[in-house]
Amino acid sequence: VTHPFIAAVQAAAPNCRLACDATGMEPFLTDCRGIFRGDALCVASPSTTADVAAVVGAARAHGVAVVPQGGNTGLAGGATPMGRQPQVVLHLGRMRAIRRIDRVGMTLEAEAGCILQSAKEAAQEKGRLLPISFAAEGSATVGGMIATNAGGINALRYGTVRQQVLGLEAVMSDGSVLRAMSGLRKDNSGYDWKHWLIGSEGTLGIVTAAVLRLSPLPTQRHVAFVAVDSPAAALRLLERLQDSVGNALSAFELMSGTSVARVLQHQGGRLPLEQAGAWYVLLELSDQAAAQLGPQLEAELFAAMDAGDARDAAVADNLDQMRQFWALRENITEAERHVGRSFKHDVAVAVSAMPDFIERASAAVTALHADLSLNVFGHLGDGNVHFNVLAPDGLESLGERVHHVVHDVVAACEGSIAAEHGIGQYRVTELQRLKPPQEMAWMARVKRALDPENLLNPGKLLPAEQNHVA
Amino acid sequence: VTHPFIAAVQAAAPNCRLACDATGMEPFLTDCRGIFRGDALCVASPSTTADVAAVVGAARAHGVAVVPQGGNTGLAGGATPMGRQPQVVLHLGRMRAIRRIDRVGMTLEAEAGCILQSAKEAAQEKGRLLPISFAAEGSATVGGMIATNAGGINALRYGTVRQQVLGLEAVMSDGSVLRAMSGLRKDNSGYDWKHWLIGSEGTLGIVTAAVLRLSPLPTQRHVAFVAVDSPAAALRLLERLQDSVGNALSAFELMSGTSVARVLQHQGGRLPLEQAGAWYVLLELSDQAAAQLGPQLEAELFAAMDAGDARDAAVADNLDQMRQFWALRENITEAERHVGRSFKHDVAVAVSAMPDFIERASAAVTALHADLSLNVFGHLGDGNVHFNVLAPDGLESLGERVHHVVHDVVAACEGSIAAEHGIGQYRVTELQRLKPPQEMAWMARVKRALDPENLLNPGKLLPAEQNHVA
Repeated sequence: VTHPFIAAVQAAAPNCRLACDATGMEPFLTDCRGIFRGDALCVASPSTTADVAAVVGAARAHGVAVVPQGGNTGLAGGATPMGRQPQVVLHLGRMRAIRRIDRVGMTLEAEAGCILQSAKEAAQEKGRLLPISFAAEGSATVGGMIATNAGGINALRYGTVRQQVLGLEAVMSDGSVLRAMSGLRKDNSGYDWKHWLIGSEGTLGIVTAAVLRLSPLPTQRHVAFVAVDSPAAALRLLERLQDSVGNALSAFELMSGTSVARVLQHQGGRLPLEQAGAWYVLLELSDQAAAQLGPQLEAELFAAMDAGDARDAAVADNLDQMRQFWALRENITEAERHVGRSFKHDVAVAVSAMPDFIERASAAVTALHADLSLNVFGHLGDGNVHFNVLAPDGLESLGERVHHVVHDVVAACEGSIAAEHGIGQYRVTELQRLKPPQEMAWMARVKRALDPENLLNPGKLLPAEQNHVA
Repeated sequence: VTHPFIAAVQAAAPNCRLACDATGMEPFLTDCRGIFRGDALCVASPSTTADVAAVVGAARAHGVAVVPQGGNTGLAGGATPMGRQPQVVLHLGRMRAIRRIDRVGMTLEAEAGCILQSAKEAAQEKGRLLPISFAAEGSATVGGMIATNAGGINALRYGTVRQQVLGLEAVMSDGSVLRAMSGLRKDNSGYDWKHWLIGSEGTLGIVTAAVLRLSPLPTQRHVAFVAVDSPAAALRLLERLQDSVGNALSAFELMSGTSVARVLQHQGGRLPLEQAGAWYVLLELSDQAAAQLGPQLEAELFAAMDAGDARDAAVADNLDQMRQFWALRENITEAERHVGRSFKHDVAVAVSAMPDFIERASAAVTALHADLSLNVFGHLGDGNVHFNVLAPDGLESLGERVHHVVHDVVAACEGSIAAEHGIGQYRVTELQRLKPPQEMAWMARVKRALDPENLLNPGKLLPAEQNHVA
């Protein structure tokens, strides 16, 4: 028997593709890490905003929950169905058009299902930069990165995705469509509802299109790989570069020596320095033609070595070397799969508090069990590290205790347990444990105001029971 | 007889200063332009966040509305009491501490009453830039600029105040205090309530402190004054500079020829070009030492003249000339006072739509009455102009019709009637007339969720009757 919701969608949006069989639904019911799995009445793939609205309208009429999904690259299970209520996965991958690039307005308008990499390439063809870079950019979508307020390596210079959103179109819980798609850079005509939705993981509305801010396209890049003794030394190098070439600093990544060693062991590659370091920094400068960055970077690196803040440093001579340097950083996540189970922590603290956090959290994990090892790397320049704890076979059951121990240090450092990967399902219990109840209560108020029937991605970000109708 | 609210504040916050007499209250009951005036039970000046919370708690207990006020520099009456309900002006000027500057974290922590200029100077002393610049910065406060999401001349490069807010402390309508003051650059641990409050003009919560993002301090500046034939030619010059030195472009201001002529006539100064132009652009480049901006700027200006996009151009030779160039722009508002009444419009459209907007809006005003004159100037680089209509004596009554005519063109261009000055009291009727009712309804839902008793700055931004308890 066909569920009346499916019949309603077929009637209201005949062009919306529906997959209701196990094979057709399969790719959409599991997250990309294979950790979360849920069930659904069907997977709906609309190709227009009107059809998204029709699906949401039908869902509301029939009490069906809506789980929006973009490229299914999320690391927190935010796009995977959960629980037993009737639900539909709303797959936005067919809405992938890049509608417009405005060179002088420095904006790009795209639909939610547009792949980030496609948008970046389209901007680049017009001589503009879309300054959002992260590992999954070849599969992640514009809608997904807005729903999670993605971060990545360029946030240090350009801010997170939130700072790149100049316009938004969204379907709200009642099926109505809000549009603010003129790409205004200044608009204070009422509350800015775009910012309610950004980072709300599909729980307050469904992004269907956006206008993104573009930046001038750099015409020169300089990449350096630097060995340092400690995170504190890395911070001194960062401050030195802020003072001299800070405007051009587009990446400042920290990697532990063991993280890089693991890459060299399992993924190959070559260390561009003569001796291994306790920690490494991978940094990038980029700018337009008027800057004389190359000589200045070399001078600063020499000065850092003289001051004892850097052990050794290599500057890439060509594009190929830049790629090799970056591969050492980008393969870290892949390399950890060879070790065992990874308990991931996506931590933000104040930039200046990072050495203290790493020291305290490392000690806490070691105290928990001597066989746990650490994989610490990430975006030091914006105060975000991936503090992953690797458990060999037999220690998988330690997950919850590891999360508690690490997150307790995060809380003690006044940091965030969800810097750029979101809460999703993965961290919803921990969020509830650590966030002040008062703050959770205000969030629940806004959830109830915007989604009173709790149909938009229920159980993600906020616990399912907390955002039920009061 | 003392109002019981006053007694309650005295009991709960004995250190909170209270002015209840006409003389003491006078400076706080009228806006800076002398257009709006209201009444209040008293003016409360707390010196701590706890005292702000106590005032709000007492206000709630006694049904008194709370009107937060910073430097009282707003142009939309948002900080002036209105209506007949019992209300308190909550003056935050005593909370002015700069609590901390973190060089490597690139953050500045300040209380709400801190004057913007003081914060900028403190950042500069530490070798950092707080990139927010507007005319009232010598009086405007951190809290006020956050509550209105102020813009100004550097938004083109750095974004509006919203993009500079990394942390916030606020008192909510029930007197509870929300704090997110670690200065995190990436935080997606739940809904980002900071963005609910930014730009909400004190109607959803009261900002008591903030952590602001700092940027590298420029060590070189280049200022050019350029005559162009039209706004369209100015846009072509803008695009040329985006392509070559866009990362360093920190201001790109458009001024009509008559606006500048009015400054020269009433305020003095000297045109730095041999011949008057139909329009002018004032632009500024700034960067750290590594950039070779001066020669590049001159080359680009020559190329623009060759292409017919610029008539003539002057580059300031020294700091004194830079000040003279900028004075021609900064005195425009002052000069218009000599002409008569100014009907102000704070318009944003897409950057590329600005020539079309200016042409259509100018024609519409001229058609309304031949004796109205225009004062058009502003931030072309981010799509924001102040489209002021000057009415000689006898035409003051045309105000409402002028607003309608101009705002109708804004709406036709899909723009905003409140780019950077806010809605306040001044534009609340026009907002209601022009914003889609559906969008107003979602705003009202959030207002009711966060301020169910409508005690926070009622009647501002949203019409008073619309945000009453349903």
